[in-house]
Amino acid sequence: MSAPRQTATRRKYAAILGNLGNTCDRFCSGYKDNPSSMEMLRRAGKVDGISGIELVGTWDIRPDNSREMAKALGDMGLECVSIIPDLFADKVWRFGSLSAKDGAVRQKAMDYLRTMCGVARELKCGLINLWPGQDGYDYLFQGNYLSERAWLAENITLLAQEFPDLKFSLEYKAREPRTHSYLARMADTLLVCLGTGCGNVGVTIDTGHAFVGGENAAESVVLAKQSGDRLFHMHFNDNYKTWDDDMIVGSIHSIEYLELLYWLDECGYKGWLSMDQYPYREDAAGAISESIKWLMGFDAMLEANRPRLAQAIAAGDAVATSRLLRSIVQGKQS
Amino acid sequence: MSAPRQTATRRKYAAILGNLGNTCDRFCSGYKDNPSSMEMLRRAGKVDGISGIELVGTWDIRPDNSREMAKALGDMGLECVSIIPDLFADKVWRFGSLSAKDGAVRQKAMDYLRTMCGVARELKCGLINLWPGQDGYDYLFQGNYLSERAWLAENITLLAQEFPDLKFSLEYKAREPRTHSYLARMADTLLVCLGTGCGNVGVTIDTGHAFVGGENAAESVVLAKQSGDRLFHMHFNDNYKTWDDDMIVGSIHSIEYLELLYWLDECGYKGWLSMDQYPYREDAAGAISESIKWLMGFDAMLEANRPRLAQAIAAGDAVATSRLLRSIVQGKQS
Amino acid sequence: MSAPRQTATRRKYAAILGNLGNTCDRFCSGYKDNPSSMEMLRRAGKVDGISGIELVGTWDIRPDNSREMAKALGDMGLECVSIIPDLFADKVWRFGSLSAKDGAVRQKAMDYLRTMCGVARELKCGLINLWPGQDGYDYLFQGNYLSERAWLAENITLLAQEFPDLKFSLEYKAREPRTHSYLARMADTLLVCLGTGCGNVGVTIDTGHAFVGGENAAESVVLAKQSGDRLFHMHFNDNYKTWDDDMIVGSIHSIEYLELLYWLDECGYKGWLSMDQYPYREDAAGAISESIKWLMGFDAMLEANRPRLAQAIAAGDAVATSRLLRSIVQGKQS
Amino acid sequence: MSAPRQTATRRKYAAILGNLGNTCDRFCSGYKDNPSSMEMLRRAGKVDGISGIELVGTWDIRPDNSREMAKALGDMGLECVSIIPDLFADKVWRFGSLSAKDGAVRQKAMDYLRTMCGVARELKCGLINLWPGQDGYDYLFQGNYLSERAWLAENITLLAQEFPDLKFSLEYKAREPRTHSYLARMADTLLVCLGTGCGNVGVTIDTGHAFVGGENAAESVVLAKQSGDRLFHMHFNDNYKTWDDDMIVGSIHSIEYLELLYWLDECGYKGWLSMDQYPYREDAAGAISESIKWLMGFDAMLEANRPRLAQAIAAGDAVATSRLLRSIVQGKQS
Repeated sequence: MSAPRQTATRRKYAAILGNLGNTCDRFCSGYKDNPSSMEMLRRAGKVDGISGIELVGTWDIRPDNSREMAKALGDMGLECVSIIPDLFADKVWRFGSLSAKDGAVRQKAMDYLRTMCGVARELKCGLINLWPGQDGYDYLFQGNYLSERAWLAENITLLAQEFPDLKFSLEYKAREPRTHSYLARMADTLLVCLGTGCGNVGVTIDTGHAFVGGENAAESVVLAKQSGDRLFHMHFNDNYKTWDDDMIVGSIHSIEYLELLYWLDECGYKGWLSMDQYPYREDAAGAISESIKWLMGFDAMLEANRPRLAQAIAAGDAVATSRLLRSIVQGKQS
Repeated sequence: MSAPRQTATRRKYAAILGNLGNTCDRFCSGYKDNPSSMEMLRRAGKVDGISGIELVGTWDIRPDNSREMAKALGDMGLECVSIIPDLFADKVWRFGSLSAKDGAVRQKAMDYLRTMCGVARELKCGLINLWPGQDGYDYLFQGNYLSERAWLAENITLLAQEFPDLKFSLEYKAREPRTHSYLARMADTLLVCLGTGCGNVGVTIDTGHAFVGGENAAESVVLAKQSGDRLFHMHFNDNYKTWDDDMIVGSIHSIEYLELLYWLDECGYKGWLSMDQYPYREDAAGAISESIKWLMGFDAMLEANRPRLAQAIAAGDAVATSRLLRSIVQGKQS
Repeated sequence: MSAPRQTATRRKYAAILGNLGNTCDRFCSGYKDNPSSMEMLRRAGKVDGISGIELVGTWDIRPDNSREMAKALGDMGLECVSIIPDLFADKVWRFGSLSAKDGAVRQKAMDYLRTMCGVARELKCGLINLWPGQDGYDYLFQGNYLSERAWLAENITLLAQEFPDLKFSLEYKAREPRTHSYLARMADTLLVCLGTGCGNVGVTIDTGHAFVGGENAAESVVLAKQSGDRLFHMHFNDNYKTWDDDMIVGSIHSIEYLELLYWLDECGYKGWLSMDQYPYREDAAGAISESIKWLMGFDAMLEANRPRLAQAIAAGDAVATSRLLRSIVQGKQS
Repeated sequence: MSAPRQTATRRKYAAILGNLGNTCDRFCSGYKDNPSSMEMLRRAGKVDGISGIELVGTWDIRPDNSREMAKALGDMGLECVSIIPDLFADKVWRFGSLSAKDGAVRQKAMDYLRTMCGVARELKCGLINLWPGQDGYDYLFQGNYLSERAWLAENITLLAQEFPDLKFSLEYKAREPRTHSYLARMADTLLVCLGTGCGNVGVTIDTGHAFVGGENAAESVVLAKQSGDRLFHMHFNDNYKTWDDDMIVGSIHSIEYLELLYWLDECGYKGWLSMDQYPYREDAAGAISESIKWLMGFDAMLEANRPRLAQAIAAGDAVATSRLLRSIVQGKQS
C-alpha cells in the first residue's frame, strides 16, 4: 500500500436549499411554516461554513427565476453546487419518469430535464444531481425490469451526450418512495454509468442511502474509484440504517464517518460535502450547522491520526485498531 | 394439545375510511384527489364484504357531524367499528401526545380523547383504536424513558377508568413517524395494558406493524391471549417486512396469513378483520377488495385443512409440514 | 424529572470464560486452539479490570469439578458471577429444552438445571443466567405457541420456586440458533417474569441481542425497571445491528453505550458488566480487554457530563443535544 | 415488450452434496451424524428429480479421489454440475483467500484453485462455483478496500485466463462468515466480472443470499442479463430475509419464486437449479426433495399463466395483478 496522503483535501460544504423549509410526512402535512426559496436562501446564508447550495428544480429554480436566483446567490457569495430536477414530487411521475411504462411520460421527463440542463448552464452550475426516486416498482410482477431498466439507461445516455459540458450524478437509494428503486445501490448505479459509455455520468453517495442499502459508504467510495473515478457528489446525513431518517450527521454513528472521510481522501475526492437532511421537528439551520461541525470534527480526528489509521488498515488487527480508535474517540477525555 | 376447532369463526370485515381518500408521502403532497368523508363512505359501501368502518377522529368524525355520520352509516348498513383519534396528523403532537414532555400538550391530548370518547358513545361505537404515533423519540438522549413512558401509561389508565364502557385498543408500531415509538411491539404494549389494571385496555395488531417489528404475527396473537385475552382488534395489510408499506394483503406473503388466521381461531378471536392500507398509486376500493378476497381465500384453505395443520404443528416436522403446505398452495394447480 | 445521580455506580467487570477459547462457525470448525477451562481461566486472570467470571455449565463447570473450580477462582481472586447452563450445545436440545414438544426432553432439561443450581450453590454463585437458545422454532406451523410458551414459563416458575435463594436471569435473543426464539426481546421476557409471580426471575440484557432485536438497550433498561426492577445482569458486545456479531464494545457504536450507561445509573443497576464476545479471528484477551476499556472511557465521558446530559434529555432539543454530544466525542481533540 | 416465451425451459435440478451430511452451528458442533461423501452420494441419488451434483473441494473431491468419484457419479447417472473449492472451511483463509493481506495466503489460494480446476477437467465438470466467503472484513478500518478488491479481481482474471475452457461462477453473499463480504450482491459481482474482461466469468445467484442482500432475485437475473448474459448458475433455498437460513424453498415465500422463474425464462437461463440448503435439524433428503417439488409446482403455476403474467407486467396495475396472483395461489381451492 502506498503511503497515506498526509494532508486532507480542503473540504467544501454545501446544503440542499429545501432542507431549510417545511417538512411533512404521510401523516402530518406540515411540521413547520412554508418559507419561500429566497427566505430559505437567507437562512442558509447564515449557516457557518456553507459556501454552496443545491437547488431543486421547479421548486427553487425555473427558467423564469434563474436570473434572479443567480443574482441572489452571487450577492451572498454562494455557489450553485447542483440542480436536482424534480422527478419525485409531481404525481405525473408516480409510476416513474425516465423509465415509466408510458412513453409520453418518459418524453415529458426528458423535456423537463433538458429545460433544467439549460437552467444549469445559465447558473454556471456544472452538475445535475439526478435522483429518479419514482423510478422502480412497488409490487411483484409490476416492473418490466428488462425494458424499464433499459429505458432508464438509454435516456440518461441521451442526456449525457446532449449536454457534454454538464456532469450527471446519479443518486441511488434502495427504497422510498417506491418499495424498490431502479438505482438502488452504488454498484448497480455504476453499471448504469459504465453502460452509458459517457465519462460525464457518475454517482452521488447519500450516506444515509448507503446505510439503508446495507453498504459501508467507505467501501462504496472505493467501488466508484475503481470504476473510473465515478464519485461526483456527496450528500450527508445519519440514520439508524433501516430507513432514510435524514438526521444530523454524527448523531448516531461516528467511526463510519471517520472511515468514510479517510477513503474519500485516499480516492482523491475533490467534490462537495453537501448536507441533505430532513429536520422534521428540528431547527433546520441548527441541524445543518451541527452536521458540518461534526464533519469538521471528524476531519480534525483524521488529520491527527492519518498515518496511524493507515497503519491500522495495513495490519488489519482488530484489537490494535480498537485501541487506536478508542484513543481517538475517548483519549482526550477529562 | 386439544383438538383444533373444527369451524372457523365467521369473519367480519371492515376498513378504515381514510384508506379511500388521498395519499401522499413526504415528497409528493398528493397522488390522488381529496374526497370528502361522505364520498369515501360511498366508495367504501361498494366494496364487497365490508360491514364495518373505522373513522379517524377530527377528519371523519367530530361532535359537530356525529349525528350526520351515524345516519349515513345506518343508511348504508355499516357499523362503526372503531374511532381512531387523530394523535398523529396535527403538529401540536409533534413531540408526543399522551407522553409529551409538555404538560399542556398532554392535557390537550386528554381533553381531545375525552371528546372522542363522547363521540364514540353517540355512535354506539365500543372501541377506541389508540395509535399514539408521535409518542416516542427520534434522537438518542432525547426521550426521558422513565417519565414519558409513565405518563403514557397513567393517561391511558385514566381514560380507561373514566370510560369503562369503552374498550381502548392500543395499536403498536415500532417506528414512523418517530424513529422509535413507545408502543413498539406486542409485548411492550401488553406490559402497558397489564400496568393499567383495567380489563378494557387491549391491543390492536396491525399485521404490517408486526412484520416491521420483527414479529411473527401468529405468535403475537398467542402472547395477547396469554396476557388475559388482550387482542381487541386487527388491522390487515402486507409489506416487505422492512417498512410499513401498507400493501394489499397477500401480495407478498401467503403462509404467514394462513398461520395467523389459524391462531386467531385457536385463541378465540371474535373481533373485526379491518383493512388498513395506504394505496399510494392504486385504486383504493380495488386494493381493499383484493385484501378481503385474499383473506377469504386463506380462510378457505384453512377450512379445508385445519386438522391437518393442527397435526403438523403437533409433530413439528418441517419436511412433512412443507409437504402439506405445498399441497395447500400448489396442490390443485392444473 | 428528579436530579440525575451525581456519581456513577462503581462498575464491576466480568467475562464469560468460554470467550477465551476456541471459536468456530458453521463453515469452519475451529479458528483457534482448544484450551481447557483452567487455561482459559489463566488467560482471563490476566485481563485488566476483570473481577468476575461466568461459567458455562457442563463445559466449564460440573458437579465433578466444582470444588476444583471454586478453589481456582478463589486463588485468582475472581468471583463466579453466574452459571450459564448449557441448553444450546447438546443436540438433545435441538428442538428446545424447557419448551420442547417431547416431555422427556423437558424433564431432562429440568433435571440438568436442578443439577446446575446445586453446583451454583456450591460455588456460592447467586445467579443462573438462563439462555434457552434452542427454545423457539424455525419454520411456520412448527411451534405450538400456546403450549410451548406455557411449558417454558411453567418450568421457569418451578425452578424459581425450588431455588428461592438463586436468581434466574433470562437472557433473550430474537434469533440464532433458531430463526425465532421464545425469549426474543426485553418486553416478552418481562411478561414471562411477571407470569412466574417470583421475584427471583429477571432479565439479562445482552447489548448485541438488544441491537439485533431492534431495541434501544437504554430504553430496555427502563422497561425492566418499570416491571419491578427486573434487570439482573448485563452482557456487553457490539454488532452491526443485523446479527449477533459479538464484537468489541465500541468498535461500531458510541453514543448508544453512553446512553445505556446513563440509564443503568438512573435505574440504579448495581450488577455486573460482563463481556460476552465471540472473537472469531482475534486475540480473545485483547478483545475483552478493549471492551472493558471502552466502557471505562464511556463512563469517564458520562462522569464529566452527567448533569448536562440530564438537561439535554429534559429539553429534548436534538440540535442542542448534538452540540453537547459533539463536545463529548470530539471536543477535546487536538 | 415482446411476447413472452410460451414454453418454459426444461429445468435441470441438482444439489450440493454436503447438504446431505452433518450440520452444525457455532453453538452445537453436530446436529447429525458425519456420513462419508460416498454415503451422501447414495442418499442424493434417492432424491427424485436430481440429475446433478455439486462437490465441495477437498471435502468431497481431491486429486486422489477424482477417478473414484467420477465413476461413482457415472454409475448413478449423475452429472458433476460444479466444483465448489473450499475457500471457507480451512482456517488458513480466516483473513481471506484471493484477497488476503498476506501474499503467501493469496498464492496458496491460487495454487489450490489451480489444483481444483485440474480436478474439474478430469471430472468433465465445466463450472467452478467460487464462493470466497472469507474474503471481506469484520471491523471498520480493517480492510484495505482498494488493494484487497484489486487482488481479488486480478486473481480471478488470472484463473479465468489460465483455464479458458472452464466457467468461473462467482457466488455473492452480503455477510457470513465475515460481517462484510467483498462479493456482496449481484451488481458489485458483475463489476468484478466486467473488470476481468473474460467471458468465462459470471455469477451464481443463491436465492437466499439475494434475499439477505435486500435484492429482488428476479431483478438480479435481469441485471446479469444486461451485463452480457452473466448468470451462470443458481442455488435455491428460502429464508426470512434477514439471515441465510438455508431453508426449504417455498416454506416462507411463494410469489418471489414465481417471479424469479418467470424472469429466468425471459432471460433465457438454461443452467441448473441446484438446491443449496442447510437442514440443521431436518431430514436432508426430505428437505431437498421438498424444495424441488415446490419449484416444480411454481413452474406448473407459471406454465398455466405465463401470458397472463406477461400482461400483468405490461399493465403494471397492482390491483389487477393481485387478482391474477390470487387466482393462481388460491383459485383452485376447494
